[in-house]
Amino acid sequence: MKTAKPTIGLSHLRVTLSEDFYIGPGRADLLEGIKATGSIAAAGKGMGMSYKRAWSLVQALNEGFGAPLVATSRGGSAQGGAELTAAAHEVLARYRHMQQAAGEAIAADVDALRRLMTDRAEDK
Amino acid sequence: MKTAKPTIGLSHLRVTLSEDFYIGPGRADLLEGIKATGSIAAAGKGMGMSYKRAWSLVQALNEGFGAPLVATSRGGSAQGGAELTAAAHEVLARYRHMQQAAGEAIAADVDALRRLMTDRAEDK
Repeated sequence: MKTAKPTIGLSHLRVTLSEDFYIGPGRADLLEGIKATGSIAAAGKGMGMSYKRAWSLVQALNEGFGAPLVATSRGGSAQGGAELTAAAHEVLARYRHMQQAAGEAIAADVDALRRLMTDRAEDK
Repeated sequence: MKTAKPTIGLSHLRVTLSEDFYIGPGRADLLEGIKATGSIAAAGKGMGMSYKRAWSLVQALNEGFGAPLVATSRGGSAQGGAELTAAAHEVLARYRHMQQAAGEAIAADVDALRRLMTDRAEDK
């Protein structure tokens, strides 16, 4: 589903918090989408994911974390709504902070390796 | 093939250097294995990878980087030998340094999230 040019630098950061839980870019994006849309279906769709896949990912997040990250309401509308718990807001905010901090921590090595690539390609 | 308990903290760091090249834990481990064994087959085997898969990964590394990272010799022994070029030694050393630096940069958030998990699990 990804067609955009890749980001240079940090492109995938997975952080493992326990034997049963990790947070990575896909999971963070799904939480972000649920936060923005109030819907698991809409959040999944925005990532090219089936409802079933998005729902099973939410279950894995809730069960792995050991407490709800996504709370769903069943009354009212046909599909019900979904929202992030306070814990999920913290997980998401800290994950985004970790992406930024890690990106900054590796920046000098990234620059050096990009220079190395250019130099070697020119040597050929 | 991984059966060990997961590392807590940074568990996957992918760094994209160009549209055609990235370095992540699997690629770094393969380079490390070639460095240690002098053989693509042995390095792949150590990671539970077929020779074909290891070889195609080496080709992807060499082509994507734009200059050889793994140099092979065809004379002599049946399977030939393989060694890292100077550029590959630098890629590998800098990747390991980036893993360490990123791990340190996220450590405080990892600790906070682990405390959050424990607290929420106890609240239930």
